[in-house]
Amino acid sequence: MKTIKNQINTSYTEPASLGEHIGETVTLAGVIHKIRTMSGFAFVILRTRGSFLQCVCDLPMENLTEGAAVRLTGTVLEEPRSKTGYEVRIESIAILSLPAEEPPVVVNNKEVNASLSTLLDYRPLTLRNEKEMAIFKVQSELCKGIRGFLDGRGFVEIHTPKIVSGSAEGGANVFGLDYFGKPAFLAQSPQFYKQTMVGVFERVYEIAPVFRAEKHHTARHINEYTSVDLEMGFLQSFEELMVLETAMLTEAFAHVKEVCEKELALLQAVVPAVTEIPAIPFGEAKEWVSRIYNRPITDVYDFEPEEEKLLYELVKKETGSELVFVTHYKTSKRPFYTMETPGNPEVTESFDLLFRGMEITTGGQRIHDYRSQVEKMERLGMEVAVFESYLMAHKYGLPPHGGLGIGLERLTAKLLGFENVRRAVLFPRDTERLTP
Amino acid sequence: MKTIKNQINTSYTEPASLGEHIGETVTLAGVIHKIRTMSGFAFVILRTRGSFLQCVCDLPMENLTEGAAVRLTGTVLEEPRSKTGYEVRIESIAILSLPAEEPPVVVNNKEVNASLSTLLDYRPLTLRNEKEMAIFKVQSELCKGIRGFLDGRGFVEIHTPKIVSGSAEGGANVFGLDYFGKPAFLAQSPQFYKQTMVGVFERVYEIAPVFRAEKHHTARHINEYTSVDLEMGFLQSFEELMVLETAMLTEAFAHVKEVCEKELALLQAVVPAVTEIPAIPFGEAKEWVSRIYNRPITDVYDFEPEEEKLLYELVKKETGSELVFVTHYKTSKRPFYTMETPGNPEVTESFDLLFRGMEITTGGQRIHDYRSQVEKMERLGMEVAVFESYLMAHKYGLPPHGGLGIGLERLTAKLLGFENVRRAVLFPRDTERLTP
Repeated sequence: MKTIKNQINTSYTEPASLGEHIGETVTLAGVIHKIRTMSGFAFVILRTRGSFLQCVCDLPMENLTEGAAVRLTGTVLEEPRSKTGYEVRIESIAILSLPAEEPPVVVNNKEVNASLSTLLDYRPLTLRNEKEMAIFKVQSELCKGIRGFLDGRGFVEIHTPKIVSGSAEGGANVFGLDYFGKPAFLAQSPQFYKQTMVGVFERVYEIAPVFRAEKHHTARHINEYTSVDLEMGFLQSFEELMVLETAMLTEAFAHVKEVCEKELALLQAVVPAVTEIPAIPFGEAKEWVSRIYNRPITDVYDFEPEEEKLLYELVKKETGSELVFVTHYKTSKRPFYTMETPGNPEVTESFDLLFRGMEITTGGQRIHDYRSQVEKMERLGMEVAVFESYLMAHKYGLPPHGGLGIGLERLTAKLLGFENVRRAVLFPRDTERLTP
Repeated sequence: MKTIKNQINTSYTEPASLGEHIGETVTLAGVIHKIRTMSGFAFVILRTRGSFLQCVCDLPMENLTEGAAVRLTGTVLEEPRSKTGYEVRIESIAILSLPAEEPPVVVNNKEVNASLSTLLDYRPLTLRNEKEMAIFKVQSELCKGIRGFLDGRGFVEIHTPKIVSGSAEGGANVFGLDYFGKPAFLAQSPQFYKQTMVGVFERVYEIAPVFRAEKHHTARHINEYTSVDLEMGFLQSFEELMVLETAMLTEAFAHVKEVCEKELALLQAVVPAVTEIPAIPFGEAKEWVSRIYNRPITDVYDFEPEEEKLLYELVKKETGSELVFVTHYKTSKRPFYTMETPGNPEVTESFDLLFRGMEITTGGQRIHDYRSQVEKMERLGMEVAVFESYLMAHKYGLPPHGGLGIGLERLTAKLLGFENVRRAVLFPRDTERLTP
């Protein structure tokens, strides 16, 4: 028997710590991102641990190709012309692996000069581009910022099943599958489970995939996305959820700004400083846009994408905010578990959050009383028995509660100023795309 | 337009901070977990934010039932006989919601006195039991400990698709679905994507659901579970992965021990202090168990569950460790992407980690060279073209790398000493269970 100790032997110098090693000899591992041959030497950009390091090399480099994984030893030298303020003079280099072919798409320039479709077809390759990488570094830090916020406020992280027997959102937009001879579905949201868990932990969250079989093929829709879902008990009003989300975005955006300075600069992204977000009832927002832009209202239940953009412009002009809550959506357009507004059952205690003209959040207060929920379901002609295990939480007592869901990819895309949400998905799934 | 500010108005006193409010009046929200009527007053246990608070009440309580959600005002008093060292004397109480029915299973005793099957059938209710809640508090902290470890070592969190066009692990154990007219599958692991992302970020991880259509109905198998997956580049040997996992468990276990003292005591769970873990080659382990327990070896490729238990006992007796790495599994039993041991292609640079007699991790070094991988796939009779988008990472250069996957539920179950993994799943999915 061998013994594996818990001491990680760092064979390589941490790329992030190189600034502390000026004048010293270091050993690095990375991939040759780019070679620029000069007279008598070459600039070598090493892609290492998500960063790009300038090296100079005057050794013979016959076998060294772009895409090669290498181990190198060199001296860290001050170099004001390098982005980092230093560079590494390579003293020896060993090849660890070589690519088999030249890439069909150039990824070591400032950006990938290709259509979105090519960008996505060659994702394993194009993600190696510095700008593309930056997108997903930002996304991971967004996630971290959100988790940090929720962990700090007593929310417990949960893991709920994605294979389910019924659908929370209703409608035909679900993927079906055969589950050992029984019909099953892929969860469109963790809605039922997060409400159930309010009865246990009071405050819960989950960041996990959800699945929507929508046939839309637009810049805003994908068929599998990462949903940041939270639910909390003892709401006094659904406004508390909006306050919570405002505070969460304040903190998460500040975190990203702090740790992703380099990435944001590269992507020319401007992170809004959120301290407050305006809120406007759906009906008023509709009328406002209609009046100002002289547009007839054709859909009284929902926004057209164009209206969301116009509302964004109006709100920005009026308040300076790039985010806006729209509240009190019509009861007929919200799911059966949505709480109606006391005194006005035509509308609901619900909201969406629009960011730069795109819906990134849906949230609201839920019905917590068992009898009220059952009555509403019967009124809607739903088969209550099917929802027995969901309604168990209500039946044995559930506090007033509500929650929200954020599409992580939409949030990332709008934060970085992308029109197409696919730019912010590593490997997007849409009606036409199942690979890579 | 309203303005939503980012200032959270804490209407209620944080239950965790009550110890700092001795002698003060506080307002709390929670659910009446248990009422014990005494002469002239009652003990009321309030379930609030995942903890259980002793209150005393001498007010009339006609409408107050167990399961009611309430807001209460009271004074925090020192009380050495209470577990927390204090209790709350209720001065006023308002009912926010009432249950519709009495629970069919008693959940407000020390533990739920029911079969596993009943426990799971009534999950929305039975999770409200203090012990059941503790399990998932521990699980969430385990997750937090693991994330903290990985975040601190340059691993980037990724989100990869669960609807995929091909299967990583092979075999018939995949759930199929119709994806807009095309055949698709639920991912058995993020294997292909995490390897692909090594070519981008070098170090990545994902904690997400995976799906296995295995027909086994055992205490160790579920059909959807949460997989803690990581993958890292520039391995010098697969042993580095075992060192990494040892260090990760050291840190995650220490985190749980620190923050879940109450929960661990309640569950009578003993968290092992990991500083090192023994490792033994598969062949040797097999022979050792066979020799000591006088058991014939019937399966030369894998352990029988009984053998895993016996190995656990042997290793514990020999070294004191409750964890053991088993290395060098046979090539024919490991997936096509597994690196063979140099000089001995019959076995692989792979390992499992057994914890208290159950496999909780599979890991190993992968083949990084494009031509070696394609040759091996051809040798195995695989249709290489199907894996085109996976092999793109290898084709354009991939460093030596490897990774591992941990079943979060198995890890939790073994940490807490459960025989059945279902105890550590909120809403388990098995061949017979699709609800709740």
